[in-house]
Amino acid sequence: MRISIVNPNSTRSMTDTVAKAARQAAARGTEILAYQNDAGPLSIEGYVDGAHAVPGLLHALAVAESDGAEAHIIACFDDTGLDAARSMLTGPVIGIGEAGARMASLVARRFSVVTTLSVSVPILEDNLARAGLAGNCASVRASEIPVLALDTDPEAADAKIGAEIERAITQDRAEAIVLGCAGMADMAADLSARFGVPVIDGVASAVKLMEGALTMGLKTSKRGGYAAPRVKQDARLAVPA
Amino acid sequence: MRISIVNPNSTRSMTDTVAKAARQAAARGTEILAYQNDAGPLSIEGYVDGAHAVPGLLHALAVAESDGAEAHIIACFDDTGLDAARSMLTGPVIGIGEAGARMASLVARRFSVVTTLSVSVPILEDNLARAGLAGNCASVRASEIPVLALDTDPEAADAKIGAEIERAITQDRAEAIVLGCAGMADMAADLSARFGVPVIDGVASAVKLMEGALTMGLKTSKRGGYAAPRVKQDARLAVPA
Amino acid sequence: MRISIVNPNSTRSMTDTVAKAARQAAARGTEILAYQNDAGPLSIEGYVDGAHAVPGLLHALAVAESDGAEAHIIACFDDTGLDAARSMLTGPVIGIGEAGARMASLVARRFSVVTTLSVSVPILEDNLARAGLAGNCASVRASEIPVLALDTDPEAADAKIGAEIERAITQDRAEAIVLGCAGMADMAADLSARFGVPVIDGVASAVKLMEGALTMGLKTSKRGGYAAPRVKQDARLAVPA
Amino acid sequence: MRISIVNPNSTRSMTDTVAKAARQAAARGTEILAYQNDAGPLSIEGYVDGAHAVPGLLHALAVAESDGAEAHIIACFDDTGLDAARSMLTGPVIGIGEAGARMASLVARRFSVVTTLSVSVPILEDNLARAGLAGNCASVRASEIPVLALDTDPEAADAKIGAEIERAITQDRAEAIVLGCAGMADMAADLSARFGVPVIDGVASAVKLMEGALTMGLKTSKRGGYAAPRVKQDARLAVPA
Amino acid sequence: MRISIVNPNSTRSMTDTVAKAARQAAARGTEILAYQNDAGPLSIEGYVDGAHAVPGLLHALAVAESDGAEAHIIACFDDTGLDAARSMLTGPVIGIGEAGARMASLVARRFSVVTTLSVSVPILEDNLARAGLAGNCASVRASEIPVLALDTDPEAADAKIGAEIERAITQDRAEAIVLGCAGMADMAADLSARFGVPVIDGVASAVKLMEGALTMGLKTSKRGGYAAPRVKQDARLAVPA
Amino acid sequence: MRISIVNPNSTRSMTDTVAKAARQAAARGTEILAYQNDAGPLSIEGYVDGAHAVPGLLHALAVAESDGAEAHIIACFDDTGLDAARSMLTGPVIGIGEAGARMASLVARRFSVVTTLSVSVPILEDNLARAGLAGNCASVRASEIPVLALDTDPEAADAKIGAEIERAITQDRAEAIVLGCAGMADMAADLSARFGVPVIDGVASAVKLMEGALTMGLKTSKRGGYAAPRVKQDARLAVPA
Repeated sequence: MRISIVNPNSTRSMTDTVAKAARQAAARGTEILAYQNDAGPLSIEGYVDGAHAVPGLLHALAVAESDGAEAHIIACFDDTGLDAARSMLTGPVIGIGEAGARMASLVARRFSVVTTLSVSVPILEDNLARAGLAGNCASVRASEIPVLALDTDPEAADAKIGAEIERAITQDRAEAIVLGCAGMADMAADLSARFGVPVIDGVASAVKLMEGALTMGLKTSKRGGYAAPRVKQDARLAVPA
Repeated sequence: MRISIVNPNSTRSMTDTVAKAARQAAARGTEILAYQNDAGPLSIEGYVDGAHAVPGLLHALAVAESDGAEAHIIACFDDTGLDAARSMLTGPVIGIGEAGARMASLVARRFSVVTTLSVSVPILEDNLARAGLAGNCASVRASEIPVLALDTDPEAADAKIGAEIERAITQDRAEAIVLGCAGMADMAADLSARFGVPVIDGVASAVKLMEGALTMGLKTSKRGGYAAPRVKQDARLAVPA
Repeated sequence: MRISIVNPNSTRSMTDTVAKAARQAAARGTEILAYQNDAGPLSIEGYVDGAHAVPGLLHALAVAESDGAEAHIIACFDDTGLDAARSMLTGPVIGIGEAGARMASLVARRFSVVTTLSVSVPILEDNLARAGLAGNCASVRASEIPVLALDTDPEAADAKIGAEIERAITQDRAEAIVLGCAGMADMAADLSARFGVPVIDGVASAVKLMEGALTMGLKTSKRGGYAAPRVKQDARLAVPA
Repeated sequence: MRISIVNPNSTRSMTDTVAKAARQAAARGTEILAYQNDAGPLSIEGYVDGAHAVPGLLHALAVAESDGAEAHIIACFDDTGLDAARSMLTGPVIGIGEAGARMASLVARRFSVVTTLSVSVPILEDNLARAGLAGNCASVRASEIPVLALDTDPEAADAKIGAEIERAITQDRAEAIVLGCAGMADMAADLSARFGVPVIDGVASAVKLMEGALTMGLKTSKRGGYAAPRVKQDARLAVPA
Repeated sequence: MRISIVNPNSTRSMTDTVAKAARQAAARGTEILAYQNDAGPLSIEGYVDGAHAVPGLLHALAVAESDGAEAHIIACFDDTGLDAARSMLTGPVIGIGEAGARMASLVARRFSVVTTLSVSVPILEDNLARAGLAGNCASVRASEIPVLALDTDPEAADAKIGAEIERAITQDRAEAIVLGCAGMADMAADLSARFGVPVIDGVASAVKLMEGALTMGLKTSKRGGYAAPRVKQDARLAVPA
Repeated sequence: MRISIVNPNSTRSMTDTVAKAARQAAARGTEILAYQNDAGPLSIEGYVDGAHAVPGLLHALAVAESDGAEAHIIACFDDTGLDAARSMLTGPVIGIGEAGARMASLVARRFSVVTTLSVSVPILEDNLARAGLAGNCASVRASEIPVLALDTDPEAADAKIGAEIERAITQDRAEAIVLGCAGMADMAADLSARFGVPVIDGVASAVKLMEGALTMGLKTSKRGGYAAPRVKQDARLAVPA
C-alpha cells in the first residue's frame, strides 16, 4: 500500500526527518511517498503560518492522490488543513497531532503534549478538545524551542524538552508524553528510555493508523461535513479532482 | 471610526449585500470599507472552499488595515480564517457567525441557526462549541439552498428558510433565530415580523460589536494564541505588516 | 435611544460612578437614565445581599420602562435578578457581568475576572458557566477589597487589584482582564495601559451591547423561560405592567 | 429533631399538602415545622414569581431557625432562594427540586422531571445542570397544568401528568420520574404503581436527606460561597440573625 | 427495616469498623446486616483488586437479600461492583463513595476527597465524573496511607490525612471533605471539629440514603441498564435469584 | 509479533468468529493467540454478566502473557475488565469497543454504534463518554438481537441490524457505523457496501491498533491508575505475575 506524508512547510530537513520516521514505522509492503509544500512557510508557528500553508498543502495532497497514494498524513502537529483534506480526498487522512494523541490514549489515561512555542498551545488545546481528547490531556507544554532550532541546536532542544517532560510527569500527573512537533520524530525512543513512560511520536502513530485503516478498507465517509466539494461554475478555482 | 467588512468569496452581489447591510447597521460616524476576495471561490460551502478563501481574505484584511480600518468583519458565517486574522491584525476582528450567535444569546436562552447547505452544519456546530455557545444552540438547520441561489431564486429561498425557522421554533424549542449566511442579511426584519421571535443577522451584529469594541478602545490581546507572527528568514512569504 | 442603568444597591457614590461610566461609553444620541435601588443593601456581597436587592431592582426597572427606557443594564457584576428582569420587561436587558465577559471573549481567548471579595467568586463562576463562558475564563480572582472600599480607599484597591491582574496574566495565562465590580468602572483604561492587555469594564460593555441590540431592533424573546409572567388573581403582588 | 418546611408561595392548600407529605415521610422523632410565605405570590411560575418570593421566604426561614428548626426545606421545585438560604442559615437547607433529583439518581441512571408549565422548564434545566444532574436527566416535561389547578382540577392534572410520564418512558428512555411541583407530593405512590417505575416526590426526598444530614451532624460549610453575610452599617436591611 | 452492608474485601477489622459505623448512623428500627467477602482481596487498591472482589461481593449481596435485607451498601469507596449489584438485586443499592459525595454536595459547593493510595485516584475521579459530581469536586487527594495501615498505624494515618485536608482547604478551595476509604469511617467527627468544615463519612451517608429510599418505597428501576439479567441456558453460572 | 485475543464468554462459536476475524486483519508476521474464558457466561449482556466474566478473563490474559503474547485484545464490545487488564499486564491492551470507536473517529465526524440488546446501551454510552468519544457518537442503537442469535438466526440478525443502520444514517446523521458486538465481526464488509458508509468491526480495529502500538514499542504506562498491583500478604489471591 502507498501512504503519502506531506510536510506543510518548506523546510527540507523537516521533510527528510518525517519521511525517515515514517519509513522506519512502516510495515514491509508499505511505500511512503513524501512531499513538501514549497509554497508554504519555513515553519508553522501559529495561526497565520497555518493559514498560509493550507492551499499548497492541499495541492501536494492532490498530487499525492494522483500518484497513487491511498492514505495521507499531514506532518504538522497542528493538523493543518485536516478537515479540508478529508473533504477533498478519497482515501483516509490523518494529522500527526491527532494520531499521536489517539495512540497515547491507548496506553495511558492522561498524557501531556510537549510542543515548541507557546503560540501553538491554544491551537493544540482546541484540536484536542474537538477530538474529544481534552479530558485525557494533562497539559500542553511549550518548550519555547522554535521549530527550526530542533535541527540547528539539538542539544538545547533536548534539554528544554526533557525539562518540560519532567514537569509534566511530576506536576501534571502525565502518564505518557506526546511529542508535539514533526521535527521531534526521532527523539521518542531516547526520551521514553530516559523518563520511563511512553513517549510517542505522531509520525509513527499516523503511519500505523493509516496502515490499519487501509487494511480494513476504510475511507473517509462522504456523508456530512466531509462530503466532496460541489463543483461550481468558476474555472479559476477548480478543486483538484 | 472605520470598520472593514471583507467578503471572503468572489461574488459581487454578496459583497454588495453585506456592504449595504453593514452600512445600514452602522452608527453615524462609522465608515464601512467593503472588500471582496477576488482570489476566493464563488461561495464558501464546506471546508475546501474555506481553505482556499483564507490567503486572499488575509490579504484583503491587510489592505483594509493599511487603508485605516480599525476593526474588521469577516463576512462569512463560517468565520473563515478568524483566528489567523486576529493574530495578524492589530485591531479587533469578528466573523458574522460568532457575532450573530453572541447577539442572539443576549435576547434568548436558546437559538437556532438556519443556514444554507448541510455541508456547513458541522463547521457551524464546531464554531459554536468553541465559542461556548453550543449549550444555547437548539439546532443548526440547513435549508439546502445553495449560497448563490439566495440571490437568483429569492422566493424559493424565502420559503425554505421560513420552513426551517418554523421547525426550529416548534420542534427544537428555539426562542430566536440566527440567519446562517451573509447572503441572508436583508431577510431578518421580515422574518422576525412573520415568526414573532428575534431573527438576527450576523452582519449587523458584527458592526455593532466592533463599534462597541472600538468605542471602548479594545484591541485583540497579543498574549497567547493571537500573538503576532514571528518574522522568519523567508522573503517569499512575508506576513503583511 | 434611552437606556436605563440600575444600581441594585443603595450606595449613591456607586450609582454616580456607573452613571458616569455609562454616559462616557454611550453614543451621541443615547440617553442614559440612571436609577438606584434605595430599598437595596449598601452593597451586594454574596447571595443574601443579592436576594434582598431583587424586588427593589425589579421595581426600579419597571419605573425605567415606564420612563421610556428601551433597554436596561443591571449594574452589578453578579447580574442580580437578570432572568426575572428579562421575563418582566419588554426591552432587552443585560447585566454588567455577562456584558464584560462577552466583550472580553471578542478580543482574547482566555480572560480572568478580578472581583472584590471571595464570597462572590462562586456566584461569578456559576454565571460564567451558565453563559457558556467558563471555557474561556482562566480564573475568577478576588482582591479581597470590599465593594465600598473601592471608593474610600482607592489606593489600596488599586494596588490589590493590580496584584491580582499580575497573577492572572503570569499564573493563569489570562490574555485579558474583566473588572468584576461596577465600582471599578473607571479603572479600566489605566490598568490596560499598565499591564498591556485589554482590561474591560462591564458598564461600558453593557452600554455598547444594548445600543447594538436596539439599533438592530432586538427585544428579549418571549418564548420559553422569558415569557411574560401570567396574571394571577392576587391583587397584592401585581407584576409591574 | 426539628425540620422546617417553607412554602414560598401564599396558597394555603399547597402549604397543607407539603406539610402533610413531609410529616408522612418523617421518622418518628422528627418534628416538622411548616411555614407559609404570606408575602409571596399565589404560586411560583417563572422567574418573576420566584424573585418576588425570596425575601419573604428568607424571613420565614429565619423565623424557623429561631423556632428551633435545625434543618430546612424549601418547598418549591424551582429551589427558590436556595443559595441565599444556605448562606443565611446555620443548619443545612435543601430545595425539593434538588432533593427529588438526587434521590432519583440513586435508583435510576436516567430520570425525567414532569412539571407544571413550560415556563419553568428552563429554570429546572439550569438547576439540574448546576447540580451536576443534567447528564442523568432524560427530559424536563411540562404538563401545562398551572400549579393551582393541581388542586382545583385533580382529574385533569392526573391525566395530563400521566400522559407526560408515558412519553418520558417511551420516547426519552426515562427509567424513573421526578414529580416537578410541590403540589404533586401526594401523587407519587399511585403513579409509581401505574407506570412500574420509581416516581419520586421531592418533599419526602428532602425530609429524608435533611434527617440524614442532621443525624450525621452536618451543617452547611461556611467557607466559600455560603459564608455568612458580612454585617454592614445599614440598619434598614439587617440580615436576620 | 433491614439494610445490608458488605465489605468487599476480606479484612475482618474493616468489616467491624464499617458495621459499627453503620449501626451508629442507623435510625432506631433499622437493622444492619454486615457481611464480609471472604473470597475477596485483603484490601481494594486499584483495578485488579476491584475486579477480583466483585464475584464474591455479588454472592454476599445475594445472601443478604435472601436474609431479608431490603437495601444494600457496598462498603468500598471505589463503589466496586455497584452497577452489577443494582442490576442483580431488587432493593436499592449504594456504594459509600457515591453516598459520601452526594451528601457532601448538600452542604458545600466544592468538596475534596482524601483517599488512601494514588492508585485509587483515577478510579474515584471516574466515578465522580459518571455521577455528575466532578464539577463539585475540588480535588481527589491521596494520603499514601495503604488501606490496612489505617488500622495498624492510626497516628501516622491521622497525620497524613490531616495534612491532605489542610491542603485541600487552602490550595484547592475545598469547602468540605469526604473521607475516601471505608476504613476512615470513625475519623469524621474529630477531623470536622479540627478543621472547621464538614468532614463526611461515606458509611453513615449510605445508611441515611438507604433508609430514606426505603421509607419512600424506592427500588432500583428495572428499565434500562439495571434490568434484571436474562436467564441463559447455562447451569454453571446461574445468577443468584 | 504475538497478539492475544480473549473471548470473555464461554461460547465456542464466538471465540472462533473473533479469532478468524483477527487473523484476517493481522499483518503477515503477526501471530494471533485465541483464548476463551470457559469460566465466563455464555454471553455478556449487561452488568452482571460482565462482572462474572472478569476473573476468568484476567486469568486467560495472564496465561496469554505467559504464552508470549505482547499485546492483548478483549473481544467483547463492553470492553469488559479493560482497566484491570491494563493494570495487571505489561503489554498494551485494548477492548474491541474502544478500538472500533477510535477507528471510526478517523474516517467520520459522527458515528453510530449498532449493538445487540438495549441492556448494553448504557454500558456502551458510559464507555464512550469515558473515552472522550461521546461527542462524536450520534447514537447507540440496539437491534434487540440477543448475542447468541447472531449465530443461530443470521438472517433475522442481518435484517434487524440493517434496519438500525438505516435509522442511524437517516435519523441520527451518522456518517459511519461501528458494529457493537464481537459476534458481528464478519458482517462489516457487506454492510459497508450496502449502505455506502464505513462500517467498522472492532476486532479488526483492535488488531491494527495493537500491531501499531507494538511496532512503536509502546506499553501501558505504569504511572497512575494502571500501576501494577501491590503484592499483599494474602496467598489466596495472588495476582498473576
